[in-house]
Amino acid sequence: MNDHTTTVSASVIEKIRQAVGPQGVLTAAADLDPYVVDWRGVYRGTTAAVVRPANTAEVAAVMKICAETCTPVVPQGGNTGMCGASIPSAGGGEIVLALARMNRVLEVDPLNNTLTAEAGCVLAAIQQAAADADRLFPLSLGAEGSCQIGGNLSTNAGGINVLRYGNTRDLVLGLEVVLPDGRIWKGLRGLRKDNTGYDLKHLFIGAEGTLGIITAATLKLFPRPAANATAWMAVRDPEAALQLLALMRRHCNDRITAFELISRHSLELVWQHIPGTRDPIGEPHPWYVLTELADAGDESALRADLERALETALNKELVVDAVIAENHTQAQALWHLRESIPEGVRQAPAMVYRHDIAVAVGRIPEFIREAQAALEARFPDVQLICFGHLGDGNLHYNAYLPDRLRSDAAARDAHDVTETVYDIVQQYGGSFSAEHGIGLSKVAELARYKSPVELDLMRTVKHALDPQGLLNPGKVL
Amino acid sequence: MNDHTTTVSASVIEKIRQAVGPQGVLTAAADLDPYVVDWRGVYRGTTAAVVRPANTAEVAAVMKICAETCTPVVPQGGNTGMCGASIPSAGGGEIVLALARMNRVLEVDPLNNTLTAEAGCVLAAIQQAAADADRLFPLSLGAEGSCQIGGNLSTNAGGINVLRYGNTRDLVLGLEVVLPDGRIWKGLRGLRKDNTGYDLKHLFIGAEGTLGIITAATLKLFPRPAANATAWMAVRDPEAALQLLALMRRHCNDRITAFELISRHSLELVWQHIPGTRDPIGEPHPWYVLTELADAGDESALRADLERALETALNKELVVDAVIAENHTQAQALWHLRESIPEGVRQAPAMVYRHDIAVAVGRIPEFIREAQAALEARFPDVQLICFGHLGDGNLHYNAYLPDRLRSDAAARDAHDVTETVYDIVQQYGGSFSAEHGIGLSKVAELARYKSPVELDLMRTVKHALDPQGLLNPGKVL
Repeated sequence: MNDHTTTVSASVIEKIRQAVGPQGVLTAAADLDPYVVDWRGVYRGTTAAVVRPANTAEVAAVMKICAETCTPVVPQGGNTGMCGASIPSAGGGEIVLALARMNRVLEVDPLNNTLTAEAGCVLAAIQQAAADADRLFPLSLGAEGSCQIGGNLSTNAGGINVLRYGNTRDLVLGLEVVLPDGRIWKGLRGLRKDNTGYDLKHLFIGAEGTLGIITAATLKLFPRPAANATAWMAVRDPEAALQLLALMRRHCNDRITAFELISRHSLELVWQHIPGTRDPIGEPHPWYVLTELADAGDESALRADLERALETALNKELVVDAVIAENHTQAQALWHLRESIPEGVRQAPAMVYRHDIAVAVGRIPEFIREAQAALEARFPDVQLICFGHLGDGNLHYNAYLPDRLRSDAAARDAHDVTETVYDIVQQYGGSFSAEHGIGLSKVAELARYKSPVELDLMRTVKHALDPQGLLNPGKVL
Repeated sequence: MNDHTTTVSASVIEKIRQAVGPQGVLTAAADLDPYVVDWRGVYRGTTAAVVRPANTAEVAAVMKICAETCTPVVPQGGNTGMCGASIPSAGGGEIVLALARMNRVLEVDPLNNTLTAEAGCVLAAIQQAAADADRLFPLSLGAEGSCQIGGNLSTNAGGINVLRYGNTRDLVLGLEVVLPDGRIWKGLRGLRKDNTGYDLKHLFIGAEGTLGIITAATLKLFPRPAANATAWMAVRDPEAALQLLALMRRHCNDRITAFELISRHSLELVWQHIPGTRDPIGEPHPWYVLTELADAGDESALRADLERALETALNKELVVDAVIAENHTQAQALWHLRESIPEGVRQAPAMVYRHDIAVAVGRIPEFIREAQAALEARFPDVQLICFGHLGDGNLHYNAYLPDRLRSDAAARDAHDVTETVYDIVQQYGGSFSAEHGIGLSKVAELARYKSPVELDLMRTVKHALDPQGLLNPGKVL
């Protein structure tokens, strides 16, 4: 194990400045601030310099200098992550390498259905470039106005369309990566079939900047759906929601783009804190499903499909009441309810313990019940906020105790609620981080819940690609 | 680099026999023969023993013995590969580890849409188990009656449904793997979202048995389509076929399951050699497209969709003539034509140089023209057999010279035709092995066409996971 520099020396920063020019290096404290704290203000670190290369050659030159001088690097995209993976440590020994200037869409090929973009390209810009070419890039998440595709790739971002289109990992055909020793792996290929050796891109996707710095990617494009249909349905319980999903799959096959399960209490926080929001259905119900279908062709035909499925569901009493969006504005209003839940949660004064978990889809209702029972047994006043991507088996299963406030450090540091939830997830063979990754915040959980063989394999790969441990030390492993 | 045993000693074989029992080891020459030659009779090797473990624990025990005694191992599935990857070397220093006894479907979970099977399970059995649960496992290829899922995974098999469902890599959620040191990585998980560390399964998928021995896999299932519609269309040239594909995508979105381009000469070999086959269309045409749509719901509605798309295509003169299958039998007859081409090729006396290539979809027509021109310039008598998965950018672009016969060793060993084709593929940024992998047969091409950085990354990964070089030495790298 090499000793990393405890601070980055002036001579190293000067070498970097030679490589990227003065416009590529920030050192004044006021300039550094946005890069050393995460967007939620939870993680704060220190750095001697934020480096902002203009292109891949500059990234490589910087990495080479860092390799030669044993200077650790924290890669950063849009700084919208949930686990502090792109924030430097408090010690100040790393430089931050921000990809933001490398924000171009390099190529759109509608016949091949690919789009190539630099890693600092904002996700919304990629979505727009695809739309301009009458195509769809289906990755869609709340932060899309500021997150960058390099960060999406490094965290294998999920989002609302995973049910139909998969995770970011499933949307990538090729990568360009700067390796920890400064060499460039030029793996940008728009081929859907290529069995010429190991598939190296999957090492870097989801590695949270610990194995290489992604500098560009070739992404898959899809046909742009001409028709959408959205429905908001009240259901009796998660079991009914699950049967509803199976019914809709039988009727609508893979036209289903999203299938979200939402508890009433999650919505109460929205109606309480977010102006202009209201219950789409008159009577209160304990659980809701928001679903969307998309297709080529006729919107009225798609709507008729949805209505037929809904009618069957009502007859079988899987759905108690429902609203179908009459137009795009109404659909947006329904999605606004779902998308506002995190903001509603944020405005609540309680310390909300958040868990981004996944179990096998069929076990979601059982999991919800068992976790609730375990929490209530241990914390009789617990309140649950439960919503998420039922079709993927991914729930945001959050909990709070009314007498533990966010402003209270002891409440923030407590692990007891989280341990209760994660231990049950583990028993179910599930994931304690379905979407958000490990970063800094879940390093302890990784060590606790992963098998020794798996941890060892990960360390083997890390040590092989980054023997000096330069990339994002302290994150993930 | 460790010296491998040049022959496997009797004491090692005895230790292995202790681990798997006498029923798990074959040593008699007559018993070994099917395992030491590939199904086409092209590659023949030698081994002292074929080991046939009954379960993962036995695989691990054998691998442990091999690690301790520095005995190299050649993993083998159904022995249906195209590149000799699962055949032992002529030298006789490796044991063959055949997975065939581990052939059970372990679990089918229709709600979670997953199926878990041992690596030796025959693909057709997995398809049937999925069908029995009213689901679809969409991997489908010619060898499905005898290939095993472990082999499909190790070669990232493609098949006819890649256009809609992706390669084998896209169909896997988890793996169980025995590592070169005998430890077991238990990564069988049926989760669609799990961002807890590096995605290790992708190292082993497509690694052709050189990084670990896959012992089980959790696979994705899909809704079983209720409706199919198949059409055989005559087109003017590959450009027209490409525009036809774009048109059909606009009309039918992702209902298109397959889109195959076929040259007339490919079919002439079928009509000549395969009894009971004939031209579905009266007049001769230079190129054809075979397409299939699949969907939930009504077959007449799907057929109407196809007819509408076809009518537009005829009006735009993208299609010159066409036949839509009236029923399942007619559809099967059309597919039989396409699937018989390899057999038609095999029965031709000429030495056919086969190239399984991929380029960006939009460049396929250009590639076909340029490769033909280059071949005709160098070999004036060349004949081309061109057919494949246009929608994936993957062509079987084969060529022969009438005076070079398969029976002639010099004809078989010649590289000139292949080099001409692959050099053009390289210029197009394409793949010289879209589906079939590297194995033994394309090791030289890998060294020639891959970038030094990429080759080095592959060797780094290989050395990290298999430092003694025990798994499938001489294959891939």
